[in-house]
Order: sequence, then C-alpha cells, then structure tokens
Amino acid sequence: MKKIKVGIVGGTGYTGVELLRLLALHPQVDLHIITSRAEAGMPVSDLFSSLRGYVDLKFTDPAQADLTVCDLVFFATPNGIAMQQAEKLVAAGVKVIDLAADFRIQDIAEWEKWYGMTHACPQLVKQAVYGLPEINRAQIAKANIVANPGCYPTAVQLGFLPLLEAGVINPDFLIADAKSGVSGAGRKAEVHTLLAESADSFKAYAAGGHRHLPEISQGLAGMAGKAVGLTFIPHLLPMIRGIHATLYAQLTKPMDVQKLFEQKYQHERFVDVLPAGSHPETRSVRGSNTCRIAVHHHQDTNRVVILSVIDNLVKGAAGQAVQNMNIMFGWDEATGLQVVPLLP
Amino acid sequence: MKKIKVGIVGGTGYTGVELLRLLALHPQVDLHIITSRAEAGMPVSDLFSSLRGYVDLKFTDPAQADLTVCDLVFFATPNGIAMQQAEKLVAAGVKVIDLAADFRIQDIAEWEKWYGMTHACPQLVKQAVYGLPEINRAQIAKANIVANPGCYPTAVQLGFLPLLEAGVINPDFLIADAKSGVSGAGRKAEVHTLLAESADSFKAYAAGGHRHLPEISQGLAGMAGKAVGLTFIPHLLPMIRGIHATLYAQLTKPMDVQKLFEQKYQHERFVDVLPAGSHPETRSVRGSNTCRIAVHHHQDTNRVVILSVIDNLVKGAAGQAVQNMNIMFGWDEATGLQVVPLLP
Amino acid sequence: MKKIKVGIVGGTGYTGVELLRLLALHPQVDLHIITSRAEAGMPVSDLFSSLRGYVDLKFTDPAQADLTVCDLVFFATPNGIAMQQAEKLVAAGVKVIDLAADFRIQDIAEWEKWYGMTHACPQLVKQAVYGLPEINRAQIAKANIVANPGCYPTAVQLGFLPLLEAGVINPDFLIADAKSGVSGAGRKAEVHTLLAESADSFKAYAAGGHRHLPEISQGLAGMAGKAVGLTFIPHLLPMIRGIHATLYAQLTKPMDVQKLFEQKYQHERFVDVLPAGSHPETRSVRGSNTCRIAVHHHQDTNRVVILSVIDNLVKGAAGQAVQNMNIMFGWDEATGLQVVPLLP
Amino acid sequence: MKKIKVGIVGGTGYTGVELLRLLALHPQVDLHIITSRAEAGMPVSDLFSSLRGYVDLKFTDPAQADLTVCDLVFFATPNGIAMQQAEKLVAAGVKVIDLAADFRIQDIAEWEKWYGMTHACPQLVKQAVYGLPEINRAQIAKANIVANPGCYPTAVQLGFLPLLEAGVINPDFLIADAKSGVSGAGRKAEVHTLLAESADSFKAYAAGGHRHLPEISQGLAGMAGKAVGLTFIPHLLPMIRGIHATLYAQLTKPMDVQKLFEQKYQHERFVDVLPAGSHPETRSVRGSNTCRIAVHHHQDTNRVVILSVIDNLVKGAAGQAVQNMNIMFGWDEATGLQVVPLLP
Repeated sequence: MKKIKVGIVGGTGYTGVELLRLLALHPQVDLHIITSRAEAGMPVSDLFSSLRGYVDLKFTDPAQADLTVCDLVFFATPNGIAMQQAEKLVAAGVKVIDLAADFRIQDIAEWEKWYGMTHACPQLVKQAVYGLPEINRAQIAKANIVANPGCYPTAVQLGFLPLLEAGVINPDFLIADAKSGVSGAGRKAEVHTLLAESADSFKAYAAGGHRHLPEISQGLAGMAGKAVGLTFIPHLLPMIRGIHATLYAQLTKPMDVQKLFEQKYQHERFVDVLPAGSHPETRSVRGSNTCRIAVHHHQDTNRVVILSVIDNLVKGAAGQAVQNMNIMFGWDEATGLQVVPLLP
Repeated sequence: MKKIKVGIVGGTGYTGVELLRLLALHPQVDLHIITSRAEAGMPVSDLFSSLRGYVDLKFTDPAQADLTVCDLVFFATPNGIAMQQAEKLVAAGVKVIDLAADFRIQDIAEWEKWYGMTHACPQLVKQAVYGLPEINRAQIAKANIVANPGCYPTAVQLGFLPLLEAGVINPDFLIADAKSGVSGAGRKAEVHTLLAESADSFKAYAAGGHRHLPEISQGLAGMAGKAVGLTFIPHLLPMIRGIHATLYAQLTKPMDVQKLFEQKYQHERFVDVLPAGSHPETRSVRGSNTCRIAVHHHQDTNRVVILSVIDNLVKGAAGQAVQNMNIMFGWDEATGLQVVPLLP
Repeated sequence: MKKIKVGIVGGTGYTGVELLRLLALHPQVDLHIITSRAEAGMPVSDLFSSLRGYVDLKFTDPAQADLTVCDLVFFATPNGIAMQQAEKLVAAGVKVIDLAADFRIQDIAEWEKWYGMTHACPQLVKQAVYGLPEINRAQIAKANIVANPGCYPTAVQLGFLPLLEAGVINPDFLIADAKSGVSGAGRKAEVHTLLAESADSFKAYAAGGHRHLPEISQGLAGMAGKAVGLTFIPHLLPMIRGIHATLYAQLTKPMDVQKLFEQKYQHERFVDVLPAGSHPETRSVRGSNTCRIAVHHHQDTNRVVILSVIDNLVKGAAGQAVQNMNIMFGWDEATGLQVVPLLP
Repeated sequence: MKKIKVGIVGGTGYTGVELLRLLALHPQVDLHIITSRAEAGMPVSDLFSSLRGYVDLKFTDPAQADLTVCDLVFFATPNGIAMQQAEKLVAAGVKVIDLAADFRIQDIAEWEKWYGMTHACPQLVKQAVYGLPEINRAQIAKANIVANPGCYPTAVQLGFLPLLEAGVINPDFLIADAKSGVSGAGRKAEVHTLLAESADSFKAYAAGGHRHLPEISQGLAGMAGKAVGLTFIPHLLPMIRGIHATLYAQLTKPMDVQKLFEQKYQHERFVDVLPAGSHPETRSVRGSNTCRIAVHHHQDTNRVVILSVIDNLVKGAAGQAVQNMNIMFGWDEATGLQVVPLLP
C-alpha cells in the first residue's frame, strides 16, 4: 500500500522523539522531513541514540524545508508556532495535527488569557477538530486540522465522560487531583525539573490555575451541556512518564457505575475499563496508547472516585496524534500502535 | 541533667531506625535497650550501617529483656504487639508510646473490624491519649500511655484542623487525596514495594477503605463536634520518604483562610504555614519533624484546597513520638528535634 | 506461514513477563501454554496488567501441563528446574531454551560449587549450546537445547570479544566493573531490593565472588584460547532496567581499537558500536535487544576502556532468548525484536 | 564561647545550601552574610524552604558586601571566582576556604589547561593548603587559605591512601571507577541532568578526561612519592547524593590489607573502615561527613579492590569545609558535624 509523506516540525522535544519512535515502525508512513533550527544538519539519532538504526533523517532548517510536499505535518513545537504556519499548509492541502495548544480552545479570548499571546490565526481555530477520538471520531475523520489534546485533559476527560454524558453526577462540584511524571514539563533546561530537585520529592504546582484547566472545562462542558465547576490540582511525580488522575464526583442518582463505564467504552481500542475495585498503575500503560480506568463507588454513598492513567507522551501526546492520523487517513485506528507496555 | 532510660521494642523496622537516629543525639535520653527476636545478639549498627559510631547497642531477645527498669518504652512493632505488653509496663510506672495502631481508636469494635483481631486490652485504650500535640498537648503531658498517630492521619488532621475547629467548612463532603513514599509500607519483604515494582510508576491503593480512615474520621469528628463525611484515597509515590495530602473542602462562609491558618498555628513549633499561594515540597521536610501547610482559596469561590506535607517517618512516626516524649517529661518540645531538612 | 507452538515454564518473574511482551507480537509464535504452580488458573494479565489485550492465556499448573506438544519450551524458572525437565522434552523432539543457569557451565563441578546443588542432568550440559549468537550462531541454529546467557555475561563478553579474539590485550589482568538495575534480582520479595532500601543509593555486592564470574571466565577463556585473570565487581543501580559494564584492559600492541570493534560487529544486528568518544546510556537500549558499545583509548597509553550497555531483561535475557529461537527455527534473526527503545 | 563571623560567597547552589544546613546549627558560628547577585534581597529560606526557621539571612548583592569583617569566608562559587577575590580577604586577615577548584592544583599550567582560563592569582596557590584533613591536618591548622578537595578526589584519595603510603601497590596501574549522584553536577539548568534525562538510566561521562583527574593524580603522586598511572572513569548515577568509588590495584607484596586500613584510619573521626567483606552503601553516609571504606582482597591473588563511599555534598564538599574550619580555629574536629546519616 502506498505510504504517505509525513513531516514533523520541531522534533527535539519529548513529543518529537516519541512521534519518531512510533512513526519509525508505522507501515503507512514515510518519514519525509523533520525540522529544527537549533540542530539543523545533525542526524536525529545523534540527539536520540535510541533511534539509531531506526531513523536515518537529519534535522532540516525550517527555513529550507518545503512542508507542502507532505501529506501530513505534525507540529511538536512550543505553543504559538503552529498558529503561524498551519494556515498555509492547510491551504496547500496538507493535513495538520498540532500537538501544542494553539487550536484547542474555541474561545480565543480565553486562550489568549491563559497563553499570554495574541492568537495569530483565530479563523483556523473554528475549523480545527479537538482530537479526542472517543468523543470526536467522526469529525476527526473529515478534519484538515486536528488539535491534539493535552495530557492532563485526556486523562481527566476520559474519566468524567461516561458520568457527564449520562447526566448522573453533579457538574458543579468536580475535582481532578492529577499527577504527572516530569517528562510532561518537556525537554527544557530548567532548575525545578532537574533530577536533584524533583527526584525523591513530590509537590503540587499551579494550584492557582493551570493552562489545562480551560481546556478540560471546555471539554467537560461539552459533555454536560452546560458549564461545570471543576477544581483541578496538578502535581509533579518523581518519575519520567505517566499521568494518574484521581477524580471525585457526587452521583445524583443511584446506579451501577462500573457497568456504565464498561458499556461506554466496550468498543474503544484504547480505553480499558478495569474490573471493579482495581487500582491502575501508570506503568501498566508505559509506552502504550491505552488509557486504563477503574471505578470506585460504595453503593451506600453518593460519592464516586474514578482512577484514570495514561502515558502522557503516548495517549497524552504522540500516540493520540498517531491515532488521529490513522482516523484521518481511514486506516485501522490501531495501526502502528500495537505496543505492549514496558513492565517492569 | 539526669537522663531517662529508654527502651525500644521492635527496632528493626523503619520507625525503629528513625527513633534511633533521633534518640542517639537526644541529650536527655539514655538508650538502654532495644529488642528484636529475629536479630537478637546482633549489633544494631550491623543492621543499619548509618548508625555506626552513634549506637553501640545490640538487639536483645524480648524474652530476656526487663523493660520495667526503663522510664519510657517505645513500641515500634507491628499492630497487635503493644496491646499485649503495655499494661504490665504502665502498671510498673513505665511510660509507654505506641507507634503502631493499638491504642488509636476509641471504638474497640471499629478497631477490631479494621485490624482483623480481637483487642487484647480494651481498658487501656480508654486511658491512652492520642498523641497529636497540636490537639492534645495538655493531656499528653499527663499521659501514661500515648497512641502515636499514623502518618496519613497526622498530615490530614493538621490540614483540616483550623477549618473544622472554626466551623467554616461543610463537614459532610471532605476529600483527602493523599500520597505516601514507599517507606510508609515498612521494611517488610513484599513484592509490590520492590524498586522494580514501585519505581517510575504511581497508583492509588486501598481506595475501597484504608485502616487510617477510621483514625482520621475519629479525629475530624472530634474537631467538628459531629461525624464527618470523608473520602480518603491513598496513593503510593515512587520515592522513599514523604507524605503529601491534598485536601478539598467547601467553605460555608466567606473568610480569609490564610489568616485562619496563620493564627491557629502561630505558636506551633512543628507546623509551618507557608505564604499564600505556596506549594510545599515533601523534600522541604525530609528528615525533620515539621509539617508544612499551604492554603489555596480563590476569593470568588467556596472551594478551598489545603496542601500538607510531612516526613512520614518523622512527624508521621518517630519524630512525633519524640515530641510526645518531650511533652510527657516536661522538656522543651523541640529537644533532639532540631534537624535541618536534607535538601537536595 | 505456519506458527510454532511455544510453552513457557515459570512465567511469573521478570524474564517471564518480558518473554510474553515480545512473544505476544511475534508473527511466528502461537503462545500455547504458560505454567505456574502458585498462580495456576489466574489469567496472566491479572498478574501483569500491561498484558491486558495482548495475552489471553491463564497460568496452568505444571502438573497438568503437557509440554511435549510444543515445538519450543522456554524455561523462565529459578536455577535448578530446567535441569530436571529438559531431558524429557528434548527426547520428545521439543527444542528447549533455558533462561536460567543450568546449562551454561560446561565444568559440572564448577557449576555445582557456585550454584550449591548437584546437577541433575550433566549429560545434557554437553549437548547444550551457549546462546550468545555473536559467538555461536552456527551451533545455535542446530541446537536442541540452548543455554541462554546471563545478563552480566552478555554485556561483558560482547565488550571483551573483539579484543580477546584479536589477541591484543593482556588476558591476565581484565577488570569488569558492572552495574545492574534492580530487576536483575528478579521479582522476589526480599528486603534489600525494596524501593526504600535500594532507591537513591548505590553499592557493590558479591565482590567476593558472583555466580556470573565462572560463566564470564569460561566465555573469555574460549575467546582467548586460555584461562584469563578477571576481576568482576557487580553493583546495584537505583533503577529498574539496564546493565552498564565498564571494562578495563591493557593493550599489548598499538592499534586502532575503534576500527577493530567496528569491523568485528559490522554485520551484527544487535551490537551497535558507537562513534569514538561516545558514552552509551542504558536508556538508549531500554526495552530493546541491542547492545551498544563505546571504545575509549588514548593513543599514547596502553590502557583501553570499553563501555557496554544492554537491557538486562532483553539482550540480557528474554530478547536474546527470542533471538536464539529465531536462529533455531531459521527465521530472520530480528523477527519480533524490532522494538525502538523507550526514551525518555 | 565567642562565635566567629562567617560569610558565604555564592550561596544558591548545592554546596551553598549544604553549608547553610550545617552551619545553621554549628555552635561556634554566627552566619553573618551570604551573597548572590541573582537573588540579592531574597530571604535564603524563600529559595530553600528546608531552611525556614533555621536561617533568617537574606542574600546580599556582592557589590554591597563587606566580607572583610568576617573571620572566615567560604567560597561556594563556580570555578574562577575565588581566585579573583581571595587575595584581598587573606590580606585583610580573613581566613578563606574555597569549595571550588581555584587553589587545588599546584601546577598552574595544568590547572589552566583543564579549567580553560588564565589563573588570576597564582601566587596564592602556593600558600593554599589542600584541605584533606586525613593528609594535611597540621598544615590546615595553620592555613590562611584552604583549597577544599573535590568530591571524587576525596573518595578516591582516601581509598588509595593507605596502600600508596605503605608502598604496597603498583602505582603505574591504578583504576578508579567512580559513580556520582546528580547533585554533583550542581544546581544549574541543563538538559542532561533533568530527571527525565538522567533518572532510570546510567552512563559514564568524560571518559576521555575529567577535571578531577589532575587533582587526584597530584594527590596520589604525593602519597606515592612519584607520578602514578591512573585511569579514572566517572559515571552519573540516577540518584541525588552519594559517590561510590570502586578502586582496583595490584599488590606488590603479600599483606593483610584489611589490617593496613584499620590501622591507618583508627584515629580518624570521619573515615570508617568496615569489617572485611563489607559493601558500603552510599545511603549509609547520606547527609553525614563520613567516608566508609571496605577492602576486598583474595589472599591468593595480587588484586585488591577498595570500595569507598561519601556524600558528595558533605565529605565531598560542605562537610569537609566545616571540618577544615574546625581545624583552622582549633575546635573539636567534629563540631557541628554530629549528624546521623538519613536512612532510609
């Protein structure tokens, strides 16, 4: 079968190397170009020795790169880059998946408040489809541009989705206590994510307001059909990969929550509802595109607790992007994503 | 000044070695005896090389040990041991501090349900003072037997105390999302706490009900003057020491929560209220007896989030036991506890 | 193409779950049976949640298992099991790969000294081929029984092989300073490999003599054509996977060591010689069957330092076993082993 | 007793916070001033929350700081700073301890080659005493300026000292395979020491030549009375604190190596020779100034292996600096250094 030409803009961060890991073995993909201003000319596998023998590309200077020859371009860039370049690509018939936040929030003013910059391309935001397949599969299939969800938003939304969609919890008092491995902060030289600063310790951060809050709130409101009251507290885990969201809600009617989740996700390839009473470990999805969810509900109370885990770099970033690509091109949704999690 | 004779029953676990670390340099303490059936005859510093040069004792077979010559005996044993031996010691005029759970729950039936055994000494439970100095300082000073609080209960109770005592939150919907380092599971050979099982991963556990739940509920009810509705979800952190409790509550009246906490704890030596907006790290109390607390409250909502961190082996176990000893013997409460946390 | 029937004896340890990870996606393999006395009847994916959706087998009681219907049986058992069962299987025409040590040492007396038991099947040791493909590929292809090498021996032998084979170092003074992640100790409940004991710390162990010493010495002697003088000091790393061997030797003649290594390994699929001056990281092979090697040699001295890294569970165990299976059945040697290392 | 006034130049790194941890409780020390250009005006405990309640100082702009009023000034600065400021202080009668490398190497040309700058104050290098008390105690007592040793050099020199001093090993073939926790790289924002880069992985670095090589070689040559042939390979451990040096040498005569070490160090307060056959763990010295050493020697070979562990921030930096201060001012050498290691 004919392969498509794929480009990656900004391949020196963790979502970049993770895309390369997955795409290198994807049977439909011809890795055509990867750009980096800082590393132009360097073989990709010199930067990431894990790719030796799998990826032969060198980084190309973006100024020299003709991305319009690609069928699909992934943006694995910091926020604020894709919004400057995507329109031209879309106009040229290139499909675009942005792994950053530029196209995730429909309310431009809200986006500008949280991201501290003027949006360069509001008109494209309207076209962009939010790439959570479990909600928007049909629209993704037809999209020219997909806004790949954030890592926390993926874990939290998949956990609340069955409950809000069914209208069985109070949407005014939702709590998401979320914990992420340090790779979520990216591959930037910063003091607070040094091993000597963040290992063997644990803390909350951004308790006063995190950029993923408006993204999650937008998604939950869509499920609930109205605005929700969400408290979202992220924490930094002393480990590399993995997100664990512990979600708290109040049931508004007696019901079998386990069954609700099992039915909702019975046909989803990448959402795994564990047996009642389970405790998913982040390592159980390490390197894989699966979200595992466990439901805890005592029949005699109205309190429900949902535990949701993903690998932040896979289902929370590059894997979900590949899943979206598979949907956009009409391939089996799991193509290139058949990876058994690495345990231990 | 004359030193007191101190005995430790069961010194081969983490609370045992931590007691030894603190007591070795305590100016009022003569470490008289430490017992262990399994390691009888072995120098303590052969088991814990960190103590070489500081502790010269050998483990004594409990069958050979006369603990009644001690002024104070610490039980650093598994649950169910102290309840069999404490009565005789108390009768002999020896003060007792139990670091396990035998004397923490006043409702014997409740205790028996959670701990799965018949209580051997219910009459002594009534006399026992729950050793959280920030609540029970006066009674501890007069106690013959102190039930040293659990690690999660210490972090959670100190976080909710000012709010419940002031009656400014809804006691029917409290959430404690708590995370603990692996040393909280003790120094027992078990598969799930092996490094290869628990490092670089994160999970909740005992979401269906943890033994510390009745202890915390008892404490919070005491503060609130009525039963509370608490959801308590513990999680296992991929690190050695430290507890972080993230507490969620609904304010029932507008107020300055930061000020409430600062006033409540202004004279407490071992509770440190951080500036508004802070995020305490567990490493900021590593090795020390301090509990650091930060308050997060948006003035325009009724939701309040409290972040509370302790070292589970110090303020959550051995350090608090030493603090209780200091109170019981009328010494300065910080004697032997002037330890600067180890950071990084 | 017709698949072969594969059985695994003892699948509850780390080499077992790693074999399952690799075999689950191997196109030639029908996972037929996996045995465990302790877990008989339990779905494999209940024990290892990472395998949910990939492995449907339940553990079978060994007493009920007919392994003779298999084409190949892997022993992922403790030392001393395979030697009791392999002969019957080989007689029945079943090929056998033992991941433990039973068939690695040709000198039975030496084996019995190090392993502390009487060998149950010395006659089969003679037939067994030591499964290091880079040395014994041709014999492995014809073998009925393969002794899969130990993890340290793999990293150390691949590092010394070009030098000893070329006869350019003094075989009387070889040093292997080797470091292993904790998974090398297996999935056994033991105190010293608890996270709280082995994280954030580092130590040597078995400096007086480790079981892998005779295996390595046997291998090196084979390369050198005479006995060698090897000092082998293993250390325990505070991490899960990975072995790093730092090898020291004295050159006996001036030469281009980098070129020697590149030529020796130019056609090897799973040995990657890095550019001169490199420092391989264990994570660069995490989850993969590759051994990466770097050479350090100052032209003006006779001292050479070789750095060799593997994933102890893959090239050091299950991956090499799959590589051996591929050779034994005449398939492409990399079948099922095309796994990009997981980084970060 | 009268306290001395102490100043610290450059207190925002790990050696700075570690000095503060130790000096905060030192009975002879009045922490007078601490400088930092970047953080001038900020309370020290805002940067290092571990110091809340123990250190009240704010950082002072170096341009505003009069260090000549101090009795002693510690330089906890990057290399190249102390050499510009120390002479003026020494001239003013202030004693100086430099924790960086400016005064460690007597051969100025050698220093300039390794450190890549012109030495600003060669004349002071001659006066400076190398602050390894186990070698230079008497000179330190009289010194005006002390060059505090590097972390690797401390662990390696204390391990080789008894052997070289006794002249019982071949000085032409010494190997030091050394491993350090990440805090040894300092508190600088760099990619390679991010948790996501350096956790759960292990590698050698600077195998082609590390700055500590000339310092160690100088020290070993002093012990041997002639130049030595040393191969020194440092490695980065996925942990915070601790150095483990594994040292290899060839005995030139039969002898009781264990006894040699025990006799050499019998009166040293901070060198602990473990029983024969031991394996020191880095955690056994975590937070303390002790170096623990174990000796491995098979009587029937001429190979000896020495295992030497320190806390790189204490005996390898700040603790040794305090030890040197104690010697310079004639106090008990262990003043302020009675800290039981933190284990677990």
